[in-house]
Amino acid sequence: MPSPGDKSDYVVGVDLGGTKVYTGIFDTRLTLIGTAKFSTKSSRGAEAVIHRIARCVQDAIDECDLSPKNIKAVGLGAPGTVDSETGRVVFAPNLAWENIPLQKQLEKILDLPVFVGNDCNLAMLGVHVHELKSKPRHVIGIFIGTGIGGGLILNGEPHTGANHAAGEIGHMVLQAGGPKCGCGNDGGLEALASRTAIFRRVQLGIKQGEKNLLTDMLGDDLKDLRSGDLRKAIRRGDKFVEKVVLDAAEYIGIAVGNLINIISPEMVVLGGGVIEALDDEMMPTIKKTALDHILPGTDKGIEIVSSKLGDHAGIVGGAVLARQAVK
Amino acid sequence: MPSPGDKSDYVVGVDLGGTKVYTGIFDTRLTLIGTAKFSTKSSRGAEAVIHRIARCVQDAIDECDLSPKNIKAVGLGAPGTVDSETGRVVFAPNLAWENIPLQKQLEKILDLPVFVGNDCNLAMLGVHVHELKSKPRHVIGIFIGTGIGGGLILNGEPHTGANHAAGEIGHMVLQAGGPKCGCGNDGGLEALASRTAIFRRVQLGIKQGEKNLLTDMLGDDLKDLRSGDLRKAIRRGDKFVEKVVLDAAEYIGIAVGNLINIISPEMVVLGGGVIEALDDEMMPTIKKTALDHILPGTDKGIEIVSSKLGDHAGIVGGAVLARQAVK
Repeated sequence: MPSPGDKSDYVVGVDLGGTKVYTGIFDTRLTLIGTAKFSTKSSRGAEAVIHRIARCVQDAIDECDLSPKNIKAVGLGAPGTVDSETGRVVFAPNLAWENIPLQKQLEKILDLPVFVGNDCNLAMLGVHVHELKSKPRHVIGIFIGTGIGGGLILNGEPHTGANHAAGEIGHMVLQAGGPKCGCGNDGGLEALASRTAIFRRVQLGIKQGEKNLLTDMLGDDLKDLRSGDLRKAIRRGDKFVEKVVLDAAEYIGIAVGNLINIISPEMVVLGGGVIEALDDEMMPTIKKTALDHILPGTDKGIEIVSSKLGDHAGIVGGAVLARQAVK
Repeated sequence: MPSPGDKSDYVVGVDLGGTKVYTGIFDTRLTLIGTAKFSTKSSRGAEAVIHRIARCVQDAIDECDLSPKNIKAVGLGAPGTVDSETGRVVFAPNLAWENIPLQKQLEKILDLPVFVGNDCNLAMLGVHVHELKSKPRHVIGIFIGTGIGGGLILNGEPHTGANHAAGEIGHMVLQAGGPKCGCGNDGGLEALASRTAIFRRVQLGIKQGEKNLLTDMLGDDLKDLRSGDLRKAIRRGDKFVEKVVLDAAEYIGIAVGNLINIISPEMVVLGGGVIEALDDEMMPTIKKTALDHILPGTDKGIEIVSSKLGDHAGIVGGAVLARQAVK
């Protein structure tokens, strides 16, 4: 292993989301030494976004007093289906991307090796390798933010399946005929329990006259509502917000139960912005509901936990991918 | 490979169900050369059932003009969670079994090596090895009969997970708050689309006065109703029965869609008595619904097919397990 002073063995992890690009520089021990954040501006089109990603990477490198020649590789998680062999984004609805050669174009701009995977698959990889030290053999990760995605570790390795598309847990139908989802699957987990779904239910309830503390905090239009505001409202005794959040936690718990019954992992890890903000509020209900739904025999030693990596899971996963690819 | 005339290299496959024990004798090429069938009589308790299994195996051996010394091993699928290392049935609700040392007791009676797995995991193994020639790397099997179970082949191998309990697809909740299931999971696939669920809906509808052809065929109490009767009624133009069967097919299609989104297999195989009887009636709706529910990117090359092994999948799977274990 190079000494910490060795300036030629860094990797970059990039978490490309529908609203922001988040980039981190990591040393050989996967310690995060600097970050940069850009808004995505997906409405400007794929080429403009790819240039923004490149600038975000360059800014993070510069922020750490490094230059591109100190970087071994870049690992990037994209919000959609990715052909990880070619680094092509097959379909990313939140970016309105179809069949974009992201790896090739980014390599051309950065003049560095780039590796691309699905954002939640990479977040799971980051959690497995960095947080769990690669110990559990079968793990399911569920990441709850604007949308809901997942990643699977089976037999100690990421499972991406026949079409590199496994882990689309957010589109699991739990309530056939239920609320509409962007993907067309009514009653899918994302339409029931993502931040978007929770905010929609909060806003609708308030419009219908539900008593709450949020409007005192943020004004009637709930401008700039964030997951953290829900936590504050609940801690101040807001029963309406608490009910909406616990309903979402119950749906997540049912999904966790389904996944345990199907895959029989030893661990389920929950992450993403919603869990980071509402860990204490949601996790007890998620765990209880999941345990209520799993069959005897699948429950032995099962652990249902929240990730400590929080919003960093994506960039850590990107860094792990880059590190594994150039090892 | 021994010549077909070699009388010392046969294996036995056993499919232990809630209502019947079905046993087959297989030669080295996995050709089925004889069978025996017993009712299970689970109400008599585990010890009596295990003796019935042994007699069913002995009858099948005798039926083929063989003796136990011609048999290498017995592979048995049990309807529940099985610790395949010890051959212990951890939990089998349809038999009212908990923690039964099936392998040990059966070996003692038969004086032959016995290997035990979950019935649907073994049916999937049988379909994969014998029908699909072990070609697809990632396959999901769904077996629809009195209950609904499943099996996973991932990276070319059976995936049974951390607790040997993977594949409990029947208990996937698809309709949170929906019809009750024996397992306690309301709105699970089994409660929506198993033979039991279909028959229940047919009987309820007829009680409520739905026009149908079944009562002409079987009498008002629908005595001895079988899946094949539903097929006959539909082919004679029974719109009520057709609707019930297509509703079930739609739920199965949603489940198939969920599983493809989660696991990204290259193939989903449907089997079991209900599919065997209602293949032409159900498969088009199952396929269409599944394809409507999967995300772009997971659909490339995906095949959704019915197994040709029909009711034999379980005993073939048992035979494959026995063959692999003593190879």
